[in-house]
Amino acid sequence: SYPQKNAEILSSQYGINLFLAGLLLMFAWAVHAVGIRKQDLLSYLITIMLIQLLWMLWYICRSYTQRRLIQEKDTHAGARWLKCGITLFAVITLILDSFKIGYFIGFSNCLSATEGIFPVTHAVHTLLQVYFLWCHAKDIIQSFKTLERFGVIHSVFTNLLLWTNGVLTESKHQLNEHKERLITLDDQVPECNCTTTLCSIFSQGMYYLYPFNIEYHILASTMLYVLWKNIGRKVEHHHQHKILFKFHGITVGMIFGLIVLISTIAVVVVYLIQMGRSKIKSELALTMFYLYGISVLTLMCATGIVALLIYRLEERSMDNSKNPARKLDADLLVGTASGSWPLSWGSILAIICAQSHPKYTWYNLPYSILVIIEKYIQNLFIIESILREEEKVNDNIKTLRIGTVSSGSTLSLTPSYKEIYTGAADMDNGKFPYMFDGNIYMRERSGGDGFDEVRSQASSPVTHSTSNFSLYSRNSVNNKRRILKNIAAFLFLCNLSLWIPPAFGCRPEYDNGLEEIVFGFEPWIIVVNLAMPFSIFYRMHSAASLFEVSCKT
Amino acid sequence: SYPQKNAEILSSQYGINLFLAGLLLMFAWAVHAVGIRKQDLLSYLITIMLIQLLWMLWYICRSYTQRRLIQEKDTHAGARWLKCGITLFAVITLILDSFKIGYFIGFSNCLSATEGIFPVTHAVHTLLQVYFLWCHAKDIIQSFKTLERFGVIHSVFTNLLLWTNGVLTESKHQLNEHKERLITLDDQVPECNCTTTLCSIFSQGMYYLYPFNIEYHILASTMLYVLWKNIGRKVEHHHQHKILFKFHGITVGMIFGLIVLISTIAVVVVYLIQMGRSKIKSELALTMFYLYGISVLTLMCATGIVALLIYRLEERSMDNSKNPARKLDADLLVGTASGSWPLSWGSILAIICAQSHPKYTWYNLPYSILVIIEKYIQNLFIIESILREEEKVNDNIKTLRIGTVSSGSTLSLTPSYKEIYTGAADMDNGKFPYMFDGNIYMRERSGGDGFDEVRSQASSPVTHSTSNFSLYSRNSVNNKRRILKNIAAFLFLCNLSLWIPPAFGCRPEYDNGLEEIVFGFEPWIIVVNLAMPFSIFYRMHSAASLFEVSCKT
Repeated sequence: SYPQKNAEILSSQYGINLFLAGLLLMFAWAVHAVGIRKQDLLSYLITIMLIQLLWMLWYICRSYTQRRLIQEKDTHAGARWLKCGITLFAVITLILDSFKIGYFIGFSNCLSATEGIFPVTHAVHTLLQVYFLWCHAKDIIQSFKTLERFGVIHSVFTNLLLWTNGVLTESKHQLNEHKERLITLDDQVPECNCTTTLCSIFSQGMYYLYPFNIEYHILASTMLYVLWKNIGRKVEHHHQHKILFKFHGITVGMIFGLIVLISTIAVVVVYLIQMGRSKIKSELALTMFYLYGISVLTLMCATGIVALLIYRLEERSMDNSKNPARKLDADLLVGTASGSWPLSWGSILAIICAQSHPKYTWYNLPYSILVIIEKYIQNLFIIESILREEEKVNDNIKTLRIGTVSSGSTLSLTPSYKEIYTGAADMDNGKFPYMFDGNIYMRERSGGDGFDEVRSQASSPVTHSTSNFSLYSRNSVNNKRRILKNIAAFLFLCNLSLWIPPAFGCRPEYDNGLEEIVFGFEPWIIVVNLAMPFSIFYRMHSAASLFEVSCKT
Repeated sequence: SYPQKNAEILSSQYGINLFLAGLLLMFAWAVHAVGIRKQDLLSYLITIMLIQLLWMLWYICRSYTQRRLIQEKDTHAGARWLKCGITLFAVITLILDSFKIGYFIGFSNCLSATEGIFPVTHAVHTLLQVYFLWCHAKDIIQSFKTLERFGVIHSVFTNLLLWTNGVLTESKHQLNEHKERLITLDDQVPECNCTTTLCSIFSQGMYYLYPFNIEYHILASTMLYVLWKNIGRKVEHHHQHKILFKFHGITVGMIFGLIVLISTIAVVVVYLIQMGRSKIKSELALTMFYLYGISVLTLMCATGIVALLIYRLEERSMDNSKNPARKLDADLLVGTASGSWPLSWGSILAIICAQSHPKYTWYNLPYSILVIIEKYIQNLFIIESILREEEKVNDNIKTLRIGTVSSGSTLSLTPSYKEIYTGAADMDNGKFPYMFDGNIYMRERSGGDGFDEVRSQASSPVTHSTSNFSLYSRNSVNNKRRILKNIAAFLFLCNLSLWIPPAFGCRPEYDNGLEEIVFGFEPWIIVVNLAMPFSIFYRMHSAASLFEVSCKT
């Protein structure tokens, strides 16, 4: 039998090479290398998409005929909200594909056939992949390890390449818009006239849809990566809480968050309209953007620090059980933040070294510093939230035990407890059936580390006074939890807000001109184009994580 | 108490930012950003080195006064050969520093003071760091977690920055040499005359020492990283075999390896002399280099495949115990190989797309493909070797049990077994004392996964016939092991050989000119300068790993 670790290395190296070959092709195309045309790149992408399609079809068919082979499921992977998110993005991606097809039809005289085949393949690929992720994201594959590994890793890197392709197209567009403002125009317009009247709508509209396409691919590749990591894994059975999103109890956080969201949209609209009209208007728009950014980031830092302080007050052990989905979340947060920090450090360096400082550039300094600090604090908060052991399970055991000791009947006491644990206990309804079946429950929890400790606590003699005491301390815990919930909800909406400006083309890094002068135009463009995708992805990913935190807390 | 995971994130984010700030500074200097001079960069490096110096002094003093705090040691970390390697590189680095000081003295009229302070600080830093690594690389720090984490991660990223600085200086030099051949000269020569006669020796000699300086820093930072990863870890006590390097039994591998090594040196010398003399001589040198590369790589691929096939014949379970040092080794191999692959893919793409193909460029295609395949196979081999459970421990238990059952006395039988297990058992001498103290041994092995299984095997009734049978099967195992040992030794020398050409300035990627034409000069330089450091580091790191493999097998 082939050792599992080796199968992992074998397939991951294949995937990396698939990705690198595509990356170099993209790079060659982007730098206008001799002899490399767009259709070469598109053909490569089409080929790997088709291979993935075939593999997915094979996998789906096989799992229908041999259902017994895939029995294990990873409950942490492929959460429902993640699937809903990916479906939303996929729908918008399909609209993008139809725009591209329409654009191709309009210019079909002078565009190569690949430009038409690509969106069609991509649409089919999107449809099947979303279906695949809905049905199989939680699978823990135990059979045919090597072949399936290759298929999954192929899918991961195919999506990553499509993501890179999206990012590249988007960056080129942004760069062209920026150059357009700097007089020269370099956009590659097809050399024939459009045959339909919708062409300009298609070509303009596309770029508003790209951010969603980009998010779709990166999300799909993370889900597939978790699937890959899960192959051959032996899971401890955890019972996973169904995460239900409830507005109740997070009103304050939601209200402040929505204020931020609405003001962001306003700022972005004003920015995009004002920028490039005249020097004064541009500078005003920049000043507005920085001031807005500084205030939002300051708020976010403050709430993040409060949340961390609350965690310091409240002792709870971390959950050390192995879990690919959660580990990936943490790694991605730190990784993408690291990818985006060079942008901020570049700005800071430019401000320090620049020889002339127009007034508005000074706002850039606190803004850039705050961006770094905010991500720093937020990562600490999210990772600690993700890794904390879920308290509710332990609470329930205590409730059960206390109930059993004090009255001999759980059923009679539980409802009154439920009233006290307002927000928290309501969510536990879904798993009450488990509590009564002690055997199943024990078996399912046997993997958890902290469990023995809890059980020994719970088994110690419990009297009525103890249970009364726990009611008082619970109120304070409940307050803390409510504050944390609100903070998470607030930060969620803030991150969603901060995703909007870069995704839809606010580029103060280009527009303020300072960094370009210090670093030179080309070097700074390289920095921005490498760091910006990470920055955008960071916002979306931390929003997703914070959504989960706010539901779980 | 602060949760460990958070302390990890807190410190790693600090380190990443320290690194990124320095990286941006270096980038700014490299692209001749306005207002950023070399002394700014050097001042930053001096500052962080001084901080690390202070921290190391504090740590060393504290560990002297409070010896009891650090009791645990990670036996896998900081192997002796690693320490010896780093000492060797450090000594050459000190020579480099003295060259730099001499160069500064010669040109002191027109160089800023930082250019003199930097090598002095660096020399002190090197001395103390080597001492620190010798004494403390195996420490598992359990106290003052957060403060020590910050210190260690600071040291990791300081070394990484010094590594980047070395790489940058070296790349600039290579690029200048290349440009020099392309007529234009851009080297920054100081604007005053040298006051001593040794200046040209210093400035020329420096670049032959840089490769060692670069290796020194990357090795130091990996060792420090393992130290960082070990903070707060709970180790299962494994008894680690002292790794002794013995020439006996690997003569064949060594001979072939030395042939490769010598021919490499010859090829590099001829290449460097011939290149740039005339068009024909350059082309001949390139052809020679590619042919040499193709034959060496083919040999390496073949031996790698043989080794993997032997592993497939021989069933042994993988060691799944957690171990930062080993995990880092595997990650670094795959990571640095991935970093170097773009170079090969770039060449492949260039050959496919180029419009004219001089004859020698065709050799580049198999060469580049073989580079990819060779790293692919070699990684599989090394990682499987690293992760295999060490067989010797189990053997010894069996020996002990068989001995006990058959004659009631271990002492009388062990010597005769020792004669049979020629190569392998000799190495076990160091741990025989443990075998007689059953209690200690059991306690120490209690963490190992495969142990219970072995014990149950060993406890089953063993007769004389069983021990006779095991002698026959052992011979075949021994043969396999000898082949593997030879392969590892051969690959070790091959990797050392392949480290030489890029480290000492063979740049066929520049010299063959093809990629430059296809990608353009600037883009291709970016690819080479990003990928080359990984390629060089990959060779050194895989050589180090293979050395360990050949000792351990």
